[in-house]
Amino acid sequence: MDIIDQIEAIVGKSGLLIGGDVSARPLNWMGIGARQAKAIVRPKSTEEVSIILKICNQAKQSIIPLGGLTGLVQGTNSGPDDIVLSLERMNAVESIDATGMTAVVQAGTVLQKLHEEVEKQGLLFPLDLGARGSCTIGGNIATNAGGNQVLRYGMMREQVLGLEVVLADGTILSSMNALLKNNTGYDLKHLFIGAEGTLGIVTRAVLRLRPKPASKNTALIACDNFNQVSGLLRLMGEQIGGNLTAFEVMWQEHFKLLTDETKRHTPPLPTHHAYYVIVEQDGANAELDTKQFQNALELAADKKMLSDAVLAQSKAQAQAIWNIREDIEGLVMPLMPGAVFDVSLPIAEMESYISGLKSALEQEWGDKARLVVFGHLGDCNLHLVVSVGDGEETTIKAINKIVYQPLQAINGSVSAEHGIGIEKKPYLALSRSAEELNLMRVVKSSLDPNNIMNPNKVFNLV
Amino acid sequence: MDIIDQIEAIVGKSGLLIGGDVSARPLNWMGIGARQAKAIVRPKSTEEVSIILKICNQAKQSIIPLGGLTGLVQGTNSGPDDIVLSLERMNAVESIDATGMTAVVQAGTVLQKLHEEVEKQGLLFPLDLGARGSCTIGGNIATNAGGNQVLRYGMMREQVLGLEVVLADGTILSSMNALLKNNTGYDLKHLFIGAEGTLGIVTRAVLRLRPKPASKNTALIACDNFNQVSGLLRLMGEQIGGNLTAFEVMWQEHFKLLTDETKRHTPPLPTHHAYYVIVEQDGANAELDTKQFQNALELAADKKMLSDAVLAQSKAQAQAIWNIREDIEGLVMPLMPGAVFDVSLPIAEMESYISGLKSALEQEWGDKARLVVFGHLGDCNLHLVVSVGDGEETTIKAINKIVYQPLQAINGSVSAEHGIGIEKKPYLALSRSAEELNLMRVVKSSLDPNNIMNPNKVFNLV
Repeated sequence: MDIIDQIEAIVGKSGLLIGGDVSARPLNWMGIGARQAKAIVRPKSTEEVSIILKICNQAKQSIIPLGGLTGLVQGTNSGPDDIVLSLERMNAVESIDATGMTAVVQAGTVLQKLHEEVEKQGLLFPLDLGARGSCTIGGNIATNAGGNQVLRYGMMREQVLGLEVVLADGTILSSMNALLKNNTGYDLKHLFIGAEGTLGIVTRAVLRLRPKPASKNTALIACDNFNQVSGLLRLMGEQIGGNLTAFEVMWQEHFKLLTDETKRHTPPLPTHHAYYVIVEQDGANAELDTKQFQNALELAADKKMLSDAVLAQSKAQAQAIWNIREDIEGLVMPLMPGAVFDVSLPIAEMESYISGLKSALEQEWGDKARLVVFGHLGDCNLHLVVSVGDGEETTIKAINKIVYQPLQAINGSVSAEHGIGIEKKPYLALSRSAEELNLMRVVKSSLDPNNIMNPNKVFNLV
Repeated sequence: MDIIDQIEAIVGKSGLLIGGDVSARPLNWMGIGARQAKAIVRPKSTEEVSIILKICNQAKQSIIPLGGLTGLVQGTNSGPDDIVLSLERMNAVESIDATGMTAVVQAGTVLQKLHEEVEKQGLLFPLDLGARGSCTIGGNIATNAGGNQVLRYGMMREQVLGLEVVLADGTILSSMNALLKNNTGYDLKHLFIGAEGTLGIVTRAVLRLRPKPASKNTALIACDNFNQVSGLLRLMGEQIGGNLTAFEVMWQEHFKLLTDETKRHTPPLPTHHAYYVIVEQDGANAELDTKQFQNALELAADKKMLSDAVLAQSKAQAQAIWNIREDIEGLVMPLMPGAVFDVSLPIAEMESYISGLKSALEQEWGDKARLVVFGHLGDCNLHLVVSVGDGEETTIKAINKIVYQPLQAINGSVSAEHGIGIEKKPYLALSRSAEELNLMRVVKSSLDPNNIMNPNKVFNLV
């Protein structure tokens, strides 16, 4: 029996898309390029995933797992010989334990749905990112998603207590731990978190929840030099303590582009400063928290760690500040054709890295070169958009080299939160040593000897 | 050349202990049993560790890594045919980055030394446990140590940003990442954290630091039933938010034993309550934090989630409260011979688990049975001491069975923070499935095909 027929026998007609139903599906969130695959399989249970993988492994059939399609590194690209496995029909929030503050969730659950479900219980699932309305928990796990609250709560890895994973040979590995502490042998879940679907298919997870903060304070702060920015981060950490949730920075070019230049947003502060910082505190007591937040800002002003600041007086004002930071469309459109980056590097190296980058781009492309910088500075994570007037492949490659190469010497990372996929494979060796890459291959070969799980993503086997 | 001579050629005479120098060394922190080994090797650098492991791997010579010897599960036991590798001469805090809030530390560094070094910079390394004066960073990593502040900061795993590890074949895997976000392929460090030295020797690490909290509030709270305790945990999480650092609980038997019964401590509250909770808040602003803490306690009283409470008015009073909780000697001495446990289980299951345990012990040993319970309730982690009047091996085994068996059905863990070592191997399968154990073996065989790294600890290969 043909492999597609075998799989149809498991998932039924409604669980299998072929032909035009495959090519009607997009390849990525931008809708660029048509999806190619032998079939898109949509199992309804872990047991179905297990049988499918067993069949595929015996046939050495490649499997490309699919979440919400919001990845940015071509990590779910597929070709005509691949079978795509979509978790879209496994999308239930199975249970919430309000005492233990945990949730059991199926991998295809959209992040925002989980947010809404736990909020009904007065709880918080703290991972949050722009793609929340489309991205899935399984994708968040496979890519170890980051976002805006990593400084306080950590990345997706830190939210995962337990996992259910189907291995390449169909073995169901049920590691559905719900305990904060569990030192019983190897903590296997970490093999699969951030592995981008190359070691197994995550089908369910136990996630850690938190009490929902009752109060929020948000400020936009202007700094005129980088010492102020890094000093402010330290000071806010000391003054706000465990309630400091976000420390986001926009370089002047970014802030100006989205306000003065494109008129998409009214600037809450004058646009002549070098840096704009969003500081956010999520606390438990509105009155006391606001007092503490104001004290911290006053202290920062006294210590000359800021040049100007505006404290949001309402939810709407806080949202208006975030809207500037999160307006990716408004940012990217005027800079296309261009290249978008997600790097991380020690905070102490940021100023010289960015100024070196600027010089290198100007040297090559003169005043056609634009560099816009923003990001999760508290997490060492910067996003860059580079535009030099054309989008030819050779140009993009030249930009890539200028951006990535200097990271090696300063122990930076070519991917802070987006992952490697296909797009960043050529640059992975700048951030990881030959010994590390070799050990990744050893792990991959042990868990997936036939190389069927999202093959040729992240790194090449040889 | 004999393997010991080969190793001596690398580490020199002072780097090698043999004969009487080996047996003079203790086997564990209690000093029970003499150390046995072909030699204790004390390398001074990662490069020396690398050459030693290369030699041992070629000779299929077993290696037992040694930290501060404060483990509780016989994880560093050695026999006459083993070579013991002690990291005691690699004990430098190499550097502290106050801006990036990271420290580079050698594995043999004693935890308390790191605490002191980072404190000089106004920073905090948040992992803390009773053994702080002896335990080493390498041991903390190998065992994924827990302690008193896991609720807020996580376990040792969450403090580790990067690692340098020597693999069984001598390969130096330098993964000295210092970035909060780094999604470049598999996050290999998690293979070694909590692996109890069975996959490689950790030689250096990059650790995450935090701003040092400026204020501390501590309360001892009495509850009369378990619903109060679990309600109080939720309420404190909501009211204290990110500054809630500890939520420790002592069952009445524990509290009474260390106060009324042994007279070792003056009880800060009457001893007739069922539970005593230590709640601690580490904040940034003494005045506001104290107000917030008082508000939270008042609210808990209004909601009848506590029966009595005392708020420490000084450091000395706070210390006096903690002294009851941390007086392990005072706790264990009157209960010996007995058995000590470190389990975790869902909070919602705790009350019935403990009452079931009590019944089972009484049924078997009548009024000779004593069960004393305390622990990191906020982390699902309870420590138990069971005493039934004799310490015979068969008796201890019978107690083990009574304590461990019921955990399986409620997804509990036979080891929350102590690890498995040798002592808990017989019970590992109660907390981990056959598929999980099989995958552990696959990982072990891939990384250490000759089984030289702390062999026969954690699980058996076949």
